[in-house]
Amino acid sequence: MAKNIITISRQFGSGGRTVGKLLAERLGVPFYDKELVKQVADETGFDVGYIEENGEFSPSKSIFSFAMSQGIPIMQNGLSMSDFIFCVQRQVILKLAEQPCVIVGRGADYVLRDREDCFNVFIHADVQSRAERIVKLYGESEKRPEQRLADKDKKRKIYYKHYTDREWGDAKNYDICLNSGKIGIDKCVELILDAIKD
Amino acid sequence: MAKNIITISRQFGSGGRTVGKLLAERLGVPFYDKELVKQVADETGFDVGYIEENGEFSPSKSIFSFAMSQGIPIMQNGLSMSDFIFCVQRQVILKLAEQPCVIVGRGADYVLRDREDCFNVFIHADVQSRAERIVKLYGESEKRPEQRLADKDKKRKIYYKHYTDREWGDAKNYDICLNSGKIGIDKCVELILDAIKD
Repeated sequence: MAKNIITISRQFGSGGRTVGKLLAERLGVPFYDKELVKQVADETGFDVGYIEENGEFSPSKSIFSFAMSQGIPIMQNGLSMSDFIFCVQRQVILKLAEQPCVIVGRGADYVLRDREDCFNVFIHADVQSRAERIVKLYGESEKRPEQRLADKDKKRKIYYKHYTDREWGDAKNYDICLNSGKIGIDKCVELILDAIKD
Repeated sequence: MAKNIITISRQFGSGGRTVGKLLAERLGVPFYDKELVKQVADETGFDVGYIEENGEFSPSKSIFSFAMSQGIPIMQNGLSMSDFIFCVQRQVILKLAEQPCVIVGRGADYVLRDREDCFNVFIHADVQSRAERIVKLYGESEKRPEQRLADKDKKRKIYYKHYTDREWGDAKNYDICLNSGKIGIDKCVELILDAIKD
């Protein structure tokens, strides 16, 4: 069966987003990352930065503080803010997946788990490659890059476990998992294209 | 850097052993699975069946009973039997890996973790594909195939955790993980060959 939808889950700094973008270009299909966030923000009326954090990471205290400071209510329609955003995000993903596309992150692999034409990818890499990549892309910060990686990955792991009851990064949840640090980003793209060919 | 050593870890019934055998044929290098077991048996003086169970699975009560019934001591050189076999197996793996080869199972990915020319593969598949495969290959048994799969995988998981302190099947421990049920065994072989090409 044709693989119409590619979902990309990735460790922070592994280049998974770039793999997704290149894949979408090669396949001539839309690429959803920030665009998906924007749609969820439009549908909920929330700030893009707020959705970006809450739509993929377990909520931290600072996010709750941010919500309070912005006058964003913590509960909506009887759901916690995070659950409410998860529900809207799920609807947006289901709608986007009506057409072939590449979707990065946001538990799309889980949301689309019953679609046989969906191909799930996980991209990871060693800490050193990822640390170099985030410093190059996002610059230095107060925190050591290794700490930034650990923090982001931990939040993604907790978010994924909470909403899917699965282990984030467990090979069984994906059709292909690739170590971009060893294989290289361009070759990752080629391997995925080969894997989905009929 | 050339990838001289390929290690294959696999879920029971996923066809990982076949992937390894085909890879070794294509690369023209030795394939170690039963052969490795035989070498460990030769070096320890134990029965091949005993090594086969203890060198990859967490020891079960029935294995201890078997050891007792065969007059095999439970302790050797101050180590438990399982630890002793792990040590000998480790030595055999290090020796085999002096030359290019494909090694299936037995924690070889962990034993060779410091070798940069080592490429680690994990093969898995959905329960239905694996159940069909084991019934075809090994026939029916008293236990339901789903139960046989769960039992074997559980023992491998515990064994791997005990000796490596890592999670078996966690994508981060491997360079490529493939769902053979979705991708097909022949294409898995092609993808791995492409991935290790310089």
